[in-house]
Amino acid sequence: MAMLLLNRLAKEHEDYIKQQVHVKNPYLDTMEEDILYHFSLSTKTHNLPKMFGDIKFVCVGGSANRMKAFAHFIHQELNIPGNPDDIQDICEGTDRYSMYKVGPVLSISHGMGVPSISIMMHELIKLLHHAHCQDVVLFRLGTSGGVGLNPGTVVITDKAVDYSFRPQFEQVVLGKVITRSTELDEEVASELLQYASELESFPTVIGNTMCTHDFYEGQGRLDGALCSFSHEEKLEYLKKAYEAGVRNIEMESTVFAAMCRVCGLKAAVVCVALLNRFEGDQITSSHEVLVEYQQRPQILVAYFIKKRLGLIP
Amino acid sequence: MAMLLLNRLAKEHEDYIKQQVHVKNPYLDTMEEDILYHFSLSTKTHNLPKMFGDIKFVCVGGSANRMKAFAHFIHQELNIPGNPDDIQDICEGTDRYSMYKVGPVLSISHGMGVPSISIMMHELIKLLHHAHCQDVVLFRLGTSGGVGLNPGTVVITDKAVDYSFRPQFEQVVLGKVITRSTELDEEVASELLQYASELESFPTVIGNTMCTHDFYEGQGRLDGALCSFSHEEKLEYLKKAYEAGVRNIEMESTVFAAMCRVCGLKAAVVCVALLNRFEGDQITSSHEVLVEYQQRPQILVAYFIKKRLGLIP
Repeated sequence: MAMLLLNRLAKEHEDYIKQQVHVKNPYLDTMEEDILYHFSLSTKTHNLPKMFGDIKFVCVGGSANRMKAFAHFIHQELNIPGNPDDIQDICEGTDRYSMYKVGPVLSISHGMGVPSISIMMHELIKLLHHAHCQDVVLFRLGTSGGVGLNPGTVVITDKAVDYSFRPQFEQVVLGKVITRSTELDEEVASELLQYASELESFPTVIGNTMCTHDFYEGQGRLDGALCSFSHEEKLEYLKKAYEAGVRNIEMESTVFAAMCRVCGLKAAVVCVALLNRFEGDQITSSHEVLVEYQQRPQILVAYFIKKRLGLIP
Repeated sequence: MAMLLLNRLAKEHEDYIKQQVHVKNPYLDTMEEDILYHFSLSTKTHNLPKMFGDIKFVCVGGSANRMKAFAHFIHQELNIPGNPDDIQDICEGTDRYSMYKVGPVLSISHGMGVPSISIMMHELIKLLHHAHCQDVVLFRLGTSGGVGLNPGTVVITDKAVDYSFRPQFEQVVLGKVITRSTELDEEVASELLQYASELESFPTVIGNTMCTHDFYEGQGRLDGALCSFSHEEKLEYLKKAYEAGVRNIEMESTVFAAMCRVCGLKAAVVCVALLNRFEGDQITSSHEVLVEYQQRPQILVAYFIKKRLGLIP
């Protein structure tokens, strides 16, 4: 009996833990003011609980225009009253990031690459903490290079892996390299895959996502300003990646996954492949086709959000 | 005699080498079209030699607004005819980067962090190559955290160093880590220092610049979402950096220096310190003060450009 009670309490505690946004910084709550510099927000000048307390879904992506378009799209999908053109950029005091709030959904741009999204994630996690948010799910909606996939295929990330296909992120802390796990939430990923099959709108797969620190040499492109390898060596590397389960390559997933995991946040990465890297390096599709591809992760995540909110049976 | 001739030829060859923009990619000139995807430019749709052939100075910085302000400022400084408000964003087809051309000066934003500036640098170097530019000098005009400096001090980078204070940049190529030197052009740096003393407008020093891959843990900040070290450990790391000659910390200098060096481009890094990291982590100065600080590297580099163009005796 006591054992059962203990088990129940442990389970409840675990659920409680899962719901919170955990900053892992003992100093934060002792600070008189916290300036979220790259958001142009602060705990003193803004009432963060009032502004953000009801957030349940955070969607992030590289391009500011794309995340604005997503804000308009989710406004329409959730049948939120009012004119979508009235949605303000909450970070208009800075051009580092853009941020839009639509009901319980926050849409934020993060620029390109691990350092850029890492700054945004630190300040986002602090924002969610200061605003006392609970039960938040995070999504990265991105573009990527496909590995053995047709252009337009959507990849839900199983594991975010580094250039050696390891599910880890190396973080330098005071000059020392530490390693963090990049495991993502399995439940959210399989729910997304299920919804993709319900939608039947575009090809969707689940696979590993390789995160690199540049677009050219690190991804084996032959069309950069620098290239010291052959076409055959490129294909060999991509083949090895494919064999390790990699289905797409982008530049932010490992730190996104690692930080969400450390802070107890459920998260998923959903990227569309703009090209098949076995076929080439340059992105040659027309602007219209690329715009349509970029809407695909948005459509899938909007469906997830509507399901969770009970707007779809 | 023959020896003298050989020496002269070698010298001329060296000068010739220095003047050119060297892409280090044998495949590039065999491509029918080169799409500079993140600039929304292409060798087929744009006449790059006509658009950019006269470029002699390229100034890059993180923020799009700041690089637009610099375009307006240099327009005025160089007495270029026409309305500065008519200066168009050449990359308006994308929101990844902004680019402005003012006479022989190109002003481009690069976002935050090594991966973001690395994509821009690949496409910029290809652009300069396709446009047959010669004798180009590159400047990164940035913001940074000062190490033992008063806020507002301008730092001209001697060596760009990594988190272990080594003047090198680690690049992953097809899954293997290679190391590149981050040495910058000594002549340009000492010329800048000389002009700073002529200007007498703000404190300017020459020192090493540490480039990190994030803003919080990697720079020893106590105010991120994650922090696993003490105030004392932070200060110890900053003190070690200071002893290694580091005077400021930012997030782009190593790859900027490394790529310029490999491609035979003269380059300098000029950043203002927004705070003294021995005193704190948060950027607490007012918006007006920060805007004035950010103009300082612009004023110094504009002076350099005017000197080189013979507009100042």
